[in-house]
Amino acid sequence: MIQAAVMGYGTIGSGVVEVLEKNREYVAKEAKEEIRVKRVLDLREFPGDPVQDKITHDIADILEDPEIRIVIETMGGTKPAYDFVKRCILAGKSVCTSNKELVAAYGPELQRLARENHCCFLYEASVGGGIPIIRPLAKCLTSDPVRSIKGILNGTTNYILTRMDKEGADFDEVLKAAQALGYAEKNPTADVEGYDACRKIAILTSLVCRKQVNYEDIYTEGISKITAADFVYAKAMGCRIKLIAQSFLQDGCWYALVAPFLVSEESPLYAVQDVFNGILTKGDFNGELMFYGRGAGKEATACAVVADVIDAARHPGHTVNIAWSEEHQEIANIGGARFSWFVRVKDTPGILEEAKKLFGNIQVQEAGLTGECAFVTGPISENDFAAKAEKLSGILTRIRFDQ
Amino acid sequence: MIQAAVMGYGTIGSGVVEVLEKNREYVAKEAKEEIRVKRVLDLREFPGDPVQDKITHDIADILEDPEIRIVIETMGGTKPAYDFVKRCILAGKSVCTSNKELVAAYGPELQRLARENHCCFLYEASVGGGIPIIRPLAKCLTSDPVRSIKGILNGTTNYILTRMDKEGADFDEVLKAAQALGYAEKNPTADVEGYDACRKIAILTSLVCRKQVNYEDIYTEGISKITAADFVYAKAMGCRIKLIAQSFLQDGCWYALVAPFLVSEESPLYAVQDVFNGILTKGDFNGELMFYGRGAGKEATACAVVADVIDAARHPGHTVNIAWSEEHQEIANIGGARFSWFVRVKDTPGILEEAKKLFGNIQVQEAGLTGECAFVTGPISENDFAAKAEKLSGILTRIRFDQ
Repeated sequence: MIQAAVMGYGTIGSGVVEVLEKNREYVAKEAKEEIRVKRVLDLREFPGDPVQDKITHDIADILEDPEIRIVIETMGGTKPAYDFVKRCILAGKSVCTSNKELVAAYGPELQRLARENHCCFLYEASVGGGIPIIRPLAKCLTSDPVRSIKGILNGTTNYILTRMDKEGADFDEVLKAAQALGYAEKNPTADVEGYDACRKIAILTSLVCRKQVNYEDIYTEGISKITAADFVYAKAMGCRIKLIAQSFLQDGCWYALVAPFLVSEESPLYAVQDVFNGILTKGDFNGELMFYGRGAGKEATACAVVADVIDAARHPGHTVNIAWSEEHQEIANIGGARFSWFVRVKDTPGILEEAKKLFGNIQVQEAGLTGECAFVTGPISENDFAAKAEKLSGILTRIRFDQ
Repeated sequence: MIQAAVMGYGTIGSGVVEVLEKNREYVAKEAKEEIRVKRVLDLREFPGDPVQDKITHDIADILEDPEIRIVIETMGGTKPAYDFVKRCILAGKSVCTSNKELVAAYGPELQRLARENHCCFLYEASVGGGIPIIRPLAKCLTSDPVRSIKGILNGTTNYILTRMDKEGADFDEVLKAAQALGYAEKNPTADVEGYDACRKIAILTSLVCRKQVNYEDIYTEGISKITAADFVYAKAMGCRIKLIAQSFLQDGCWYALVAPFLVSEESPLYAVQDVFNGILTKGDFNGELMFYGRGAGKEATACAVVADVIDAARHPGHTVNIAWSEEHQEIANIGGARFSWFVRVKDTPGILEEAKKLFGNIQVQEAGLTGECAFVTGPISENDFAAKAEKLSGILTRIRFDQ
């Protein structure tokens, strides 16, 4: 019997307890030992909940209990998660976490401490919910360098964009409906402004480069400025608008960004709808690979956490090493990254001629909206685009094209 | 420096040598040691080829060379691959293979021998080419039982079906073109009759059930009877025709089959075109996951083999255990499996009334073809369908519906 503890009994923490309970026999067979939750750390009480007698408010009850070998961290945020996780690892307890803020900020240190203390620090659930992506990157895509990785990594924004697309509705309206349904949080900033996806692409890029990417270096733009009119054009072009988090090698530099993109039907990401996530990698020899599934939600994320718990249970006294080095991975200034742009602009006399003069070969787009016109540029660097766009008056929207 | 040998210098074997050479530095970093091919076993000579001096026709040159720690088996077939691989493992050499016939027929025995001899038997490349699917099934999807797994596992047939769909051409015509392009072999039986996909779904099902599935137990039907007219209906129904290999739990039994299916736009497999492969798993808590990429071809498959070589190199004297037990997994007689069917039938007086009497609620399909009519049945067992279909005269096509 392996005793475990859960820190943070919110959506994912309670999902983990549920999966461990409902799949008890199956998990025991896979782990070769039964796994039982002995303690649940949370600030709150849970009267009437099956874990009510296991609740503690004191981390010492976990740290000082030699029976507890595996700790599940589902608190989110870095305070006090970082301190708690570090102390667990220093006490030789394996930690399995779904916390992308923690992994993005402190990944390599916690990975190193796990090695030094002969235990595991595992985080499959921190990106892509129930989609296996961390292990495939660390253990499978090892023979052919990944040149680009991009994905729809945030379920909330993908749900909002899917609804805007299907219903022709505006952002605010759909956000409110999503909040009412529990698909978006009361304070939706982390999701809609791309901060969540930014942490996740930082983790994936760190794994790909085997070096630490600071998430602060990643240019991040959310979806709150996307309008129903943008979707009218997107449809006319056979595209969808998706919040894409990506990093890629261009001219020998790694670039990384999170931003809304126009995605054409040809991309496997086009079909990733609602709360689903999809992650696309590209290598010289291996070509394109996609990993697709439920990127969020209590149950799928809990499955990934429990799979980590099973892996830790299978390797007592041993480190399952899924790690990158503490060395810093430089991310190039986004100014040099090249994209094609879709631009909507107020219809004023000579505006398209002016756009042509500025951007060269542009493709004019029609979508039947009055009082405005729209065009698509060729590939152009961010700096170049910004400088030229400043000279063009009346810009309503600018969205990058996924290529 | 780790010395390796390649057995079988065909498409994949030469791809492995190429990936090891072109990604030499990257591979060395990942494996923590340089990997060099010392010997290449093949019946042929390769004058002028970079490996010309490494060629041997004698397996003893590999078996008796204590420097060779890892053997790459890319011969295909079971004779003499099984004998050679077994002797390598008994000599304590890790084996990495792309050979689905070998893994499907002798997987658990070779896995056990590897454990007993403290080396590895790895086979990521045996299913899905460059797509990581073996490790995700063995190492990631451990917390939630997989209830069904299905996929487009054969690139050749998917290429043929994609061309038939796009060009409205008949099977024979497209097959000839595919052969001319090298996308289909001169003797295409193993691919077009589904035998290749059958071996692959046997391996995946064995991993999912953690028990040995005999591929002979899997009902297998190829694509050679699919016609251009079938695609006319498929399009009218918003579907594509795909060769699907699958296994699933129904009424407490595992069923497995390979057959052409009508796949609707809603399925993630709909978008898997040309030589690409896609594998879909379903679990109670984890929901649907898809793994997508180049399922065939020299380079992608070679990447998967080399990733296995790196994993073996990282674990000298240790078994990376990706295995199922030698216990037999029963596959239920296909007669009990339920599907909806699409049926084309000669247009004779009263034929649809007769079909209604036999199959109950049917949906009549129109596609503008004269001299025939078509309908879709509700879910019905294979046995029941076969018995009723026998009573209906003039059946032109019968294709299952993917659901």
